[in-house]
Amino acid sequence: MHIQDMLKSHPDRTTHEMSGLSETIEACFDCAQASVTCADACLGEADPAPLARCIRLNGECSEIAQTTGRILSRRVPAHTEIWQAQLRACLIACQMCAKECQSHSAHHQHCRICADACRTCAQACEELLSALAIELRSSP
Amino acid sequence: MHIQDMLKSHPDRTTHEMSGLSETIEACFDCAQASVTCADACLGEADPAPLARCIRLNGECSEIAQTTGRILSRRVPAHTEIWQAQLRACLIACQMCAKECQSHSAHHQHCRICADACRTCAQACEELLSALAIELRSSP
Amino acid sequence: MHIQDMLKSHPDRTTHEMSGLSETIEACFDCAQASVTCADACLGEADPAPLARCIRLNGECSEIAQTTGRILSRRVPAHTEIWQAQLRACLIACQMCAKECQSHSAHHQHCRICADACRTCAQACEELLSALAIELRSSP
Amino acid sequence: MHIQDMLKSHPDRTTHEMSGLSETIEACFDCAQASVTCADACLGEADPAPLARCIRLNGECSEIAQTTGRILSRRVPAHTEIWQAQLRACLIACQMCAKECQSHSAHHQHCRICADACRTCAQACEELLSALAIELRSSP
Repeated sequence: MHIQDMLKSHPDRTTHEMSGLSETIEACFDCAQASVTCADACLGEADPAPLARCIRLNGECSEIAQTTGRILSRRVPAHTEIWQAQLRACLIACQMCAKECQSHSAHHQHCRICADACRTCAQACEELLSALAIELRSSP
Repeated sequence: MHIQDMLKSHPDRTTHEMSGLSETIEACFDCAQASVTCADACLGEADPAPLARCIRLNGECSEIAQTTGRILSRRVPAHTEIWQAQLRACLIACQMCAKECQSHSAHHQHCRICADACRTCAQACEELLSALAIELRSSP
Repeated sequence: MHIQDMLKSHPDRTTHEMSGLSETIEACFDCAQASVTCADACLGEADPAPLARCIRLNGECSEIAQTTGRILSRRVPAHTEIWQAQLRACLIACQMCAKECQSHSAHHQHCRICADACRTCAQACEELLSALAIELRSSP
Repeated sequence: MHIQDMLKSHPDRTTHEMSGLSETIEACFDCAQASVTCADACLGEADPAPLARCIRLNGECSEIAQTTGRILSRRVPAHTEIWQAQLRACLIACQMCAKECQSHSAHHQHCRICADACRTCAQACEELLSALAIELRSSP
């Protein structure tokens, strides 16, 4: 993906100087993709009934992570509050989806991989939230 | 739109009994549509430069409202936390976009209408957040 | 929804003069919403296994209709080809989803309503495609 | 990204055996991300007016590529027609956006990189369309 290069070419310098931003964007897109495929793979299993909750959380997590990745790909000046609120929604959705997928990981490889993608995304969101809090405190 | 009928036909009864849910979903979809058109209309004006911030906030608000409307259209049991976090992100994005659009409303009719759609959505999100807080307190 | 008013306030006059445009946008958003709820309602049924194909088509149809509604809400000059291609994708997705939902309509009210929303959207897309073909032929 | 591993773990074997599928999904997500950032970067330039058409095409291309990547991440049996129609819409949107971005590439690095991401995505869509046509002809 061209995320790092795109951020570096943005006229707003503060974008590409923010530690962990491109990693979080990539984690969001990866989590969105993994969750869509995991939901579809669950629906393709011989008995999808025990996976109903997993499919639903995959759907929610996928759309929230997608939107979060797209929001972080913009840089509207002074809209840090929107980023923080959307990152918190993404963090919660990823944590819940990771937990549910993990509980099916012994039986379904796609749930195991998806849980991994969700955890990575949750951690990236958490770290970016910390970085934003520090940035806000140190701004004049 | 068929929102009310769809919610009533959902097997989870608590969905259609929640006050203000279908209104909030409709407000989210309406705000998403208005913001997309407002951004495009701003870009079609003779001089879009003074509207750059408005276009950016329209884009953010539109995608967040869209995703919020879609998340509220599902009813994963016990995922109230995700709803709350996503509603908060939508509330903030709508408030900021409404304020920005309002400041251009004397010159651009599309900004005036979009500000209205954003405010309606923000208020619906706020009321649903209150209803969810009450529901959480009163659940056993 | 504010669709009609938003289109009328757009600086590009050809937007709001196109017959059936605002109806198609609304049908797309309505279909997107109905399909998301239908998929979730199917997953909430006692036995979701026979509905697996319905849930998958709901998911596809919902995202395609959503994007089509958002694309039609913009008016980039001379990009009629993109509109036509996206409308064709939406038409096919809605027709397939309507057919599948219809086959479950005797047992599930949400499938019956969703089939209706999909058919309305398919018809709106078909009519707009005809209108665009006439517009293209009559342009100098 | 985990695309390849997710497709390999899908219960429908035909998914991961399709040549070029995971590359096309990745190209779609990459193009979606690059286009969102390019639109925002264009809006952050000192004079965004000459970039208005570029910003609009970026917006369209981004949403269409996103949805295409998400549709390809599922595998509903016998819905090849939806894939084909959506791939055609993505191909056209990417070609138009690539051409427009290319025309600004001498002045804006983000347009140069985005044009590259759009071209890669267009080519991947074209190759997958060819592979699907062969698959359809050879199926009984």
